[in-house]
Amino acid sequence: MQQGRLNINGISLQSRLFLGTGLFPNPYVQTEAIKAAGADVLTFAIRRVNLDATQDDSILQHMEGMERRFQYLPNTSGARTADEAIRIARLARASGLSDWIKVEISVNERTLLPDPLETLRATEVLVQEGFTVLPYTSDDPVICKKLEEAGAHAVMPGGAPIGTGLGILNPYHIGIIVEELSVPVIVDAGLGSAADVVQAMELGVDGVLMNTPIARAKNPVQMALAMKLAIEAGRESYLAGRIPRKKYASASSSLEGVSVPW
Amino acid sequence: MQQGRLNINGISLQSRLFLGTGLFPNPYVQTEAIKAAGADVLTFAIRRVNLDATQDDSILQHMEGMERRFQYLPNTSGARTADEAIRIARLARASGLSDWIKVEISVNERTLLPDPLETLRATEVLVQEGFTVLPYTSDDPVICKKLEEAGAHAVMPGGAPIGTGLGILNPYHIGIIVEELSVPVIVDAGLGSAADVVQAMELGVDGVLMNTPIARAKNPVQMALAMKLAIEAGRESYLAGRIPRKKYASASSSLEGVSVPW
Amino acid sequence: MQQGRLNINGISLQSRLFLGTGLFPNPYVQTEAIKAAGADVLTFAIRRVNLDATQDDSILQHMEGMERRFQYLPNTSGARTADEAIRIARLARASGLSDWIKVEISVNERTLLPDPLETLRATEVLVQEGFTVLPYTSDDPVICKKLEEAGAHAVMPGGAPIGTGLGILNPYHIGIIVEELSVPVIVDAGLGSAADVVQAMELGVDGVLMNTPIARAKNPVQMALAMKLAIEAGRESYLAGRIPRKKYASASSSLEGVSVPW
Amino acid sequence: MQQGRLNINGISLQSRLFLGTGLFPNPYVQTEAIKAAGADVLTFAIRRVNLDATQDDSILQHMEGMERRFQYLPNTSGARTADEAIRIARLARASGLSDWIKVEISVNERTLLPDPLETLRATEVLVQEGFTVLPYTSDDPVICKKLEEAGAHAVMPGGAPIGTGLGILNPYHIGIIVEELSVPVIVDAGLGSAADVVQAMELGVDGVLMNTPIARAKNPVQMALAMKLAIEAGRESYLAGRIPRKKYASASSSLEGVSVPW
Repeated sequence: MQQGRLNINGISLQSRLFLGTGLFPNPYVQTEAIKAAGADVLTFAIRRVNLDATQDDSILQHMEGMERRFQYLPNTSGARTADEAIRIARLARASGLSDWIKVEISVNERTLLPDPLETLRATEVLVQEGFTVLPYTSDDPVICKKLEEAGAHAVMPGGAPIGTGLGILNPYHIGIIVEELSVPVIVDAGLGSAADVVQAMELGVDGVLMNTPIARAKNPVQMALAMKLAIEAGRESYLAGRIPRKKYASASSSLEGVSVPW
Repeated sequence: MQQGRLNINGISLQSRLFLGTGLFPNPYVQTEAIKAAGADVLTFAIRRVNLDATQDDSILQHMEGMERRFQYLPNTSGARTADEAIRIARLARASGLSDWIKVEISVNERTLLPDPLETLRATEVLVQEGFTVLPYTSDDPVICKKLEEAGAHAVMPGGAPIGTGLGILNPYHIGIIVEELSVPVIVDAGLGSAADVVQAMELGVDGVLMNTPIARAKNPVQMALAMKLAIEAGRESYLAGRIPRKKYASASSSLEGVSVPW
Repeated sequence: MQQGRLNINGISLQSRLFLGTGLFPNPYVQTEAIKAAGADVLTFAIRRVNLDATQDDSILQHMEGMERRFQYLPNTSGARTADEAIRIARLARASGLSDWIKVEISVNERTLLPDPLETLRATEVLVQEGFTVLPYTSDDPVICKKLEEAGAHAVMPGGAPIGTGLGILNPYHIGIIVEELSVPVIVDAGLGSAADVVQAMELGVDGVLMNTPIARAKNPVQMALAMKLAIEAGRESYLAGRIPRKKYASASSSLEGVSVPW
Repeated sequence: MQQGRLNINGISLQSRLFLGTGLFPNPYVQTEAIKAAGADVLTFAIRRVNLDATQDDSILQHMEGMERRFQYLPNTSGARTADEAIRIARLARASGLSDWIKVEISVNERTLLPDPLETLRATEVLVQEGFTVLPYTSDDPVICKKLEEAGAHAVMPGGAPIGTGLGILNPYHIGIIVEELSVPVIVDAGLGSAADVVQAMELGVDGVLMNTPIARAKNPVQMALAMKLAIEAGRESYLAGRIPRKKYASASSSLEGVSVPW
């Protein structure tokens, strides 16, 4: 494993940006955005893939055409229960796509917020079955800890509801989750701009998963580049160790021992 | 002038990060941080420079030894009145250092917040005398507009008091200033981390000036790189056009017209 | 039931401020603060009460001496599992104290954040056993909905971890919870000042439970009064319907049809 | 002067809520809202008053009919220069309305943000002429200090642009202004709800001036009551001394020396 790289269940990743593949205006833009983002991990809804003929599938086809090899992270979006999610995961693996799975289970149409109990149950089962499991969950630190204890290989708390672009609604919770968990923490959903990505990384998370902020930007390819830079900026900033906040000013030009010219 | 570059009074700049040169732990770190930041414009307090022998000055010496050519932006920090600032600016130019000047005038020791009236008066005089004038000012949009009308070549509202690391205290004001002014807007002072830089750039400012967040980071050189990436991330994000914020979720995996596999 | 009053499981309450009784500097201040707060509902840890002789208990004694009749809300703090919480609730009811119970279950010493799964299980059981059940829970809207579905008579999401005074960390979630639930929503824990209380009430919650912000204020009795006023201010403000936020200004002194005197 | 009351230039005020009189749906609602707010100080644009016959003026008429005696604070809104403001102030005093004057000078139609230089100049002149001068200004602490030095009897920094309801955009600046000034500080403009009022008061300001948030609320009279309560809640909370913010939780039910019943 290479120094400083994110490692999930033995797979070493170059990039800390996980990319969703939906919503792009067209396949060309999607391909260029994926390149610009420099992502290793691509996620997509299994329900949208033609599992009977993955080699012909319109979504996968574009990715397969690229030189770079990706780590696929199929997701169970659309599932409303653990059982549905488990069934989708098995289909995905059986089709040869990937043994990584993003557990995503929701019953609320307005918020698409994950169901913590069903998510936990699906995680337990899929871990037992040998999947590499990355559950999308709420930002509740206790739930995140339980997911880790259930064997999740990374835990993915939401910043805000999917597609809202509201950013990290509760930075405190994300910070606590980073402190409490040993497995990688990936902020998934709700981010809107590069500033949100940097904020997430400065809170100490290991990566960010996003789709809408890139795919629906006015210029998706340029935004993909922005997000790539933001991930790196945030990671370096986190590692470099920021200055403490102070209430009052201090001159950056200290004048001790300096002869004043007038 | 090159496409997309920041241009101040006819000088085209590669980088939108302006760097203060104080507070670094030692000259070696300072030099490496300047390189990592990729800054074109360096600022320093005239009061700390030996104007009688600028070629021997310890601060300038390190910068002169670097291959890259810098645009020096001496500042008038320590000045308490327009007259003092004007005198410092003239000394700086007479010494051959630069005809760029950052007007910085403060009487409040605790906040080091700029005096808008004295700043405005000094700007008027120095513009008349042919300087390239970049005043550091409060984030009051009306004052910023008056500085532009007085001929300032860029206007530099503070994010927060110098050295506090509090970030942008009033993003609304910074956004209004960007809307109201035609000359470049550079956020100067108070930022703490890369996320603050990206936020500033996403508000549409043309650049950022900082010193303490880099020089006083645990690892200044790494933080300089973080800030370089943040400036670029923020600029690209701004230009790429972020998604609107929405109250409720929307799936990134739209399911219309998709055959569901179960 | 009186117009506009908060009603929980058939009990009509005059006040929307629920008060914890711990941490006061002495019994006199506690009593005066309870009066100033005007609270109907008092909560205390069962573990701190002498259940063998509640009439002699030092905590209850002071409350019993007051003219006003209170609704006691014993809590299960200290419980680490649903079973422990259920046992405490039964003891409390058996002692004749109250058949209301605040379910509070936590295993994390640093955050004291509630365990959603154990909380849900205890709620199900205690509702079945005829208690009036008010669970303290995280601000996860899906968990809150499940607690309602389990029969909770009110749901009490935290603003922030107990005793931190950080305020409402995620106003968005509190707002969603208010939208999604039919039973009363009481923000419990983490508030710090009167402004936090008003913010909670303006989000549409039905009440607020607090202890530390009053008991540990410099002047607890005065702070109790502040909180009483804040609850009322927030409630009236919510009902009165605030103005929309706008980006740009509009004069409050419209000048149409007005003759200008100069 | 009564204990704890706000005192401006020798006038002791019962209420810390200053009320603007524009924008109400009709005179009846205006009158009832003024009563509910309990305000002593009423402000209105001189330009809207018929100075030739103040006893017949439609605005003043309604206020004069009320039993309570008010302190009138005519404002110079509409003025674009110090000279215009000074002229309006003199007209107001000459008409016998009041020798209190709110200096309000703006040239920017979109933001209505005050012009600090013209405001300062008008303040200097009007103080010299014996007015009780309360300038509306930006939240720049240096400008606020200069206004105090110019003899202003209270200084009124804006929370946000007039009528926006954005709340206090820069609480840090308001806090610094409170620390730096000796004369009363009144937050004027931009507030939206009762929570904003409490926040202002908890920052230590001496009062709040508002109009739109009450006059344009869905129920103006009820909102006036909310604001009255909020002013009191915020004042008491400020005086009572809030708890410090902490990162981690602390139980409100300490368990030391307590026998656990299971």
